[in-house]
Amino acid sequence: MKANLRIGICQMMVVDDKESNLRKAREMIRKASRQGCNLVVLPEMFNCPYESMAFPSYAEPIPNGETSLLLSRTARDEHIYLVGGSIPEIDSGGRIFNSCPVFGPDGQFLGCHRKVHLFDVDLESGLSFRESDTLKAGNNLTIIPTPAATLGILICYDIRFPELSRLLSLSGVQVLVVPAAFNTTTGPAHWEILLRTRAIDNQVFVVGAAPATNPVASYHAWGHSMVVDPWGSVLASTGSTETVLWADLDLSRIEQVRKALPLLRHRRTDLYTLKRR
Amino acid sequence: MKANLRIGICQMMVVDDKESNLRKAREMIRKASRQGCNLVVLPEMFNCPYESMAFPSYAEPIPNGETSLLLSRTARDEHIYLVGGSIPEIDSGGRIFNSCPVFGPDGQFLGCHRKVHLFDVDLESGLSFRESDTLKAGNNLTIIPTPAATLGILICYDIRFPELSRLLSLSGVQVLVVPAAFNTTTGPAHWEILLRTRAIDNQVFVVGAAPATNPVASYHAWGHSMVVDPWGSVLASTGSTETVLWADLDLSRIEQVRKALPLLRHRRTDLYTLKRR
Repeated sequence: MKANLRIGICQMMVVDDKESNLRKAREMIRKASRQGCNLVVLPEMFNCPYESMAFPSYAEPIPNGETSLLLSRTARDEHIYLVGGSIPEIDSGGRIFNSCPVFGPDGQFLGCHRKVHLFDVDLESGLSFRESDTLKAGNNLTIIPTPAATLGILICYDIRFPELSRLLSLSGVQVLVVPAAFNTTTGPAHWEILLRTRAIDNQVFVVGAAPATNPVASYHAWGHSMVVDPWGSVLASTGSTETVLWADLDLSRIEQVRKALPLLRHRRTDLYTLKRR
Repeated sequence: MKANLRIGICQMMVVDDKESNLRKAREMIRKASRQGCNLVVLPEMFNCPYESMAFPSYAEPIPNGETSLLLSRTARDEHIYLVGGSIPEIDSGGRIFNSCPVFGPDGQFLGCHRKVHLFDVDLESGLSFRESDTLKAGNNLTIIPTPAATLGILICYDIRFPELSRLLSLSGVQVLVVPAAFNTTTGPAHWEILLRTRAIDNQVFVVGAAPATNPVASYHAWGHSMVVDPWGSVLASTGSTETVLWADLDLSRIEQVRKALPLLRHRRTDLYTLKRR
């Protein structure tokens, strides 16, 4: 893996058929790899429609389920790091999580983030969603060290809580990777601005990976996957259709920006404290 | 004071002459008042050029200096709440702060925010600034309860630290008032996005009051004063020239937005804690 990262986002259209989704994911990962990407990211719930009632029937164990095995094999075949968006994970107790497994270039399982903040909302547009109907929340912050960069994983709604991005960044994360599926209400209102502010505040790269809009799905994902640098500049972005997006991350930008504007050093930790419990 | 707020921002052009600045401030406050504003906000360092070396010679005690007395009298005459942007404040020990005095409609002094995070930066555009050359930092969070709304005060660079806005909002602040003077490097890159994200994350109103650009000043303020609602929508904004901007704040929006998207209730305080020291 090179010192600098070429990151690829597979903004895939998710359909109501697991095998089709897995085929599509593999095809798009390969396409990203052929474009020279050494870190590839899938969107939230890429193997399953984003519907509470679909999560139990699509759920699999991690890292030994069908989807994990496919991701591991593809990471190994392409010799890439692979952030597996998210899938419904079922644990040995039958509990279901919204979980992101991560694999390394030898196919090894590097860790998994279970979405910490569940999306239970009743938006004024009429859109309601209640992940807690079928999902449990994770209880851990997830940091994945790799030789090229230290990754922190957030899933979708997790990005709305500045405490989480801050704690990950203070722990040495250089790239916040955010598989997500904002919708056509929250997307235009908040998606770009949240990704960019987490980058600006913490002076890290932020990678937002969303599904393409599927017009026949019950939940309309907003798409607009995006890569942001530590100054908050958008390095790559797209619309709502299916595409592979990529950007080169020059990790030395982190120190350059922090030297110019020493935000983390200027925090008044004598006046406020933010801690993991 | 009415239950709802009409907030006015005096985006004034600050010059290197205190008397001219005070005259201009009073004139623009009156203009805002004539437009029905019952809360009027001035920008950061509105009586003084934004230059470290100017701060000591322009400094005054608060609330008994010339500028405070003028603000108090104007607030009383216009029967408004007045957030006095900021001025260089000198205390009894000769220390100088970047301070925002607030006055009520009877002219009473309601409190003062001393900028907590000093702006010491060396930007890649070549712009350097070192407030700590002449200023000391404040050590307190500032909440101003009024019958119409609970205000939290931040000065400029303070807005870059999400901990501060979060703590103020968790303490019941409904309107974050931010006298500021972002510059032509940081302004286009970060000003709007920071104001809007603090509103989105905390589901509060955010009021950013900036000076107009003065082309002959050494420091080029970016202007672009702005009022943002708790969903992150921009209620009013402007460019870089001198103007009075106003917007009506319907405080019931806070509860509406928090009901739809219960961010503050969804914080995982079992996993992380943010506290004042």
